[in-house]
Amino acid sequence: MTEPLRLGIAGLGTVGVGVVKIVRQKANLLAARTGRPVVITAVSARSRDKDRGVSLTDYAWEDDPVALAQRDDVDVFVELMGGHEGSAKDATEAAITAGKDVVTANKALLAIHGQALAEQAEANGCVIRFEAAVAGGIPVIKSLTEGLAGNEITRVMGVMNGTCNYILTRMQDAGLPYDEVFAEADALGYLEADPNLDVGGIDAGHKLSLLSSIAFGTKVAFDGVELEGIQRISIEDINQAEDLGYRIKLLGVAQLTGRGLEQRMSPCLVPADSPLGQLKGGTNMVVLEGDAVEQVVLRGPGAGEGPTASAVMGDICDVARGLRLSTFGVPAKELEEAKPATSNSPAPYYVRLELLDRPGAMAKLASALGDAGVSIDRMRQSQHDGTEAPVLIVTHKTQRSALQDALEALKGSDVLASDPVALRIETV
Amino acid sequence: MTEPLRLGIAGLGTVGVGVVKIVRQKANLLAARTGRPVVITAVSARSRDKDRGVSLTDYAWEDDPVALAQRDDVDVFVELMGGHEGSAKDATEAAITAGKDVVTANKALLAIHGQALAEQAEANGCVIRFEAAVAGGIPVIKSLTEGLAGNEITRVMGVMNGTCNYILTRMQDAGLPYDEVFAEADALGYLEADPNLDVGGIDAGHKLSLLSSIAFGTKVAFDGVELEGIQRISIEDINQAEDLGYRIKLLGVAQLTGRGLEQRMSPCLVPADSPLGQLKGGTNMVVLEGDAVEQVVLRGPGAGEGPTASAVMGDICDVARGLRLSTFGVPAKELEEAKPATSNSPAPYYVRLELLDRPGAMAKLASALGDAGVSIDRMRQSQHDGTEAPVLIVTHKTQRSALQDALEALKGSDVLASDPVALRIETV
Repeated sequence: MTEPLRLGIAGLGTVGVGVVKIVRQKANLLAARTGRPVVITAVSARSRDKDRGVSLTDYAWEDDPVALAQRDDVDVFVELMGGHEGSAKDATEAAITAGKDVVTANKALLAIHGQALAEQAEANGCVIRFEAAVAGGIPVIKSLTEGLAGNEITRVMGVMNGTCNYILTRMQDAGLPYDEVFAEADALGYLEADPNLDVGGIDAGHKLSLLSSIAFGTKVAFDGVELEGIQRISIEDINQAEDLGYRIKLLGVAQLTGRGLEQRMSPCLVPADSPLGQLKGGTNMVVLEGDAVEQVVLRGPGAGEGPTASAVMGDICDVARGLRLSTFGVPAKELEEAKPATSNSPAPYYVRLELLDRPGAMAKLASALGDAGVSIDRMRQSQHDGTEAPVLIVTHKTQRSALQDALEALKGSDVLASDPVALRIETV
Repeated sequence: MTEPLRLGIAGLGTVGVGVVKIVRQKANLLAARTGRPVVITAVSARSRDKDRGVSLTDYAWEDDPVALAQRDDVDVFVELMGGHEGSAKDATEAAITAGKDVVTANKALLAIHGQALAEQAEANGCVIRFEAAVAGGIPVIKSLTEGLAGNEITRVMGVMNGTCNYILTRMQDAGLPYDEVFAEADALGYLEADPNLDVGGIDAGHKLSLLSSIAFGTKVAFDGVELEGIQRISIEDINQAEDLGYRIKLLGVAQLTGRGLEQRMSPCLVPADSPLGQLKGGTNMVVLEGDAVEQVVLRGPGAGEGPTASAVMGDICDVARGLRLSTFGVPAKELEEAKPATSNSPAPYYVRLELLDRPGAMAKLASALGDAGVSIDRMRQSQHDGTEAPVLIVTHKTQRSALQDALEALKGSDVLASDPVALRIETV
């Protein structure tokens, strides 16, 4: 039996405790699979006294994660604190400087500082692994970086924020408005401390930017993700979409085109009977498309103690087994600068707007669309008893810029009672 | 740049040609991802002169794959010939004896000789990789062996023979009888030279036995797979199942229970609106369940040049990157002897039989079931104008042994016009 792999774990929330449990309960299994004992030597967290339901007495305690990261008896720094500044960043940098490998679940840290950290790690001969940062228990980083290494990746897409998917499916199933379900999710502890990370699409955008880097060999470019959250999705939209045979999902899509790297994270309509449409609650789904493999779809739990700890352990076992890969699949210095491109490929759009009930309003709507070259596939004006007439439009395939032109023109006239909602319809 | 990884490819059918194309067309991408050039030095196939649509003039030619496997300028023997005896076995053994790593798509070889080959390889410091042997382009071996390495795997299941799934979905979509669709599949070249490998469930059984070994740390036990093919599935069954809200799939299930290792590959009814139920044509789906990760579902193309070559290339890139794992995830000598257990967990069953139209027949049926402790959830006797009355039964949850007892008793009486069809209903 070779030398044990010694872990220092920073952060003992749900995921950290999950990892401690697995290491304690499965010592024999892990040793058999990796060829060496996997042990925890030290831990760090905000509060030492909290009862976490698992014994920590065998491990050295560090109040300061930076000190943990630098300990001589730590081979792998396991970063489960979260956040892209402060302790998580400091301790990760300290670990790399000290020549430690890093396993992390921190998507924000890597989305924002991934390039610098990867360069630093590779210069020091360290690896950074982050399976748990994207799509919870689904081994998507591994599938993309390793399993599909013989492919030119053509597109990556997916539903990668379980909280948003919970909110959207709960609205639909219970017929509840956004605000009410948001409050429910908050009470259930599903939301990040800053809920905008979830419902604003930022967390999912972080994840998409990490997948993009691996898929296309470009530097992580979170700034280049066109972000749109789910805050403006109303129960009306959910119901109208269902009526049309669609469901609304916060969908990320990344592809490298002649114009540059398109990355968008936005609520889209997908067919109700498609695998994406049928995704319920906190489940994640990632679609990987390559020139050889065609399409691989991975589905699994996007969060939670067990699934996330499973992903962390997969990375730890890889390190124990001696797998040493570049952080984003090719050496960080060889990653190309991403040239962000606005996503403008034609698609049908769902548009919901409220016309003021005055003569000529519909004519103005029709000519605004027509002037911009947007043609209508289906249109429906609901009954109304007030001064506003709800109108629902499904366009034929159009470029988003054309639709935006039309809606801008319309806003300049005096026929809209509120800002229109426009959602892309994805038929994949 | 480090030394190139030199491939010797034996077998230049669809998959072999696909691999040659990728290595030729993506030299830069592969070098960037693996950190070294990946090159082909020699190839071998039955016929040298055949036009394969790709230039082979850069490579040495060997008529004998054993000679190829032993060449000094080959680091990795890529075995794409197939078959569990003869050249494929001889050449693989020769490669290992010569200290070469092996990448293979050969499920039969590994299902039957995997333990011996793995022991030999590990004694010689060689690795054997076989992602392409199971579920085509889906990185399922990698996900199970590496991604879920922190899990105790509780169950593995899936649809892993694209040809059977093509036949079953085609029967359903076109309303055609088995024999006609079988002939179609044959004409399209979808069937193995011995079609029983496909429709008899043997090929899928091979794959299941490989997944079982990795999942449960047991020696590959193909002999322990309870096999049932799709040859007896009639269009009548397909239609009746659809009517009840189910679809028929050739489904493999493996789990380690207190009684031993259960492995079965058999046609089952699954809910029509479930991910498995919606699987069309040659697509494969594998469900991996672990104590930490809960459930991960992987879907993708089960065969074809691109997808299978993609899986082979993933393995080649792993070897190029220096990943060295035991063949089945733990050292072959530590794999435990599998204790085969008959799968007898209770489930509802679909039973279709033809009663002879004589007084008391239905009473005999009812009492045979009742005596064996099988209770009926739904029963339907169709109209009939001849001497046989088609009867359809959905049982409540029952052990298969009880149902078999009932059907045996019934066969012993004189009321059945033909052998009954009994299919397990899986609600996962």
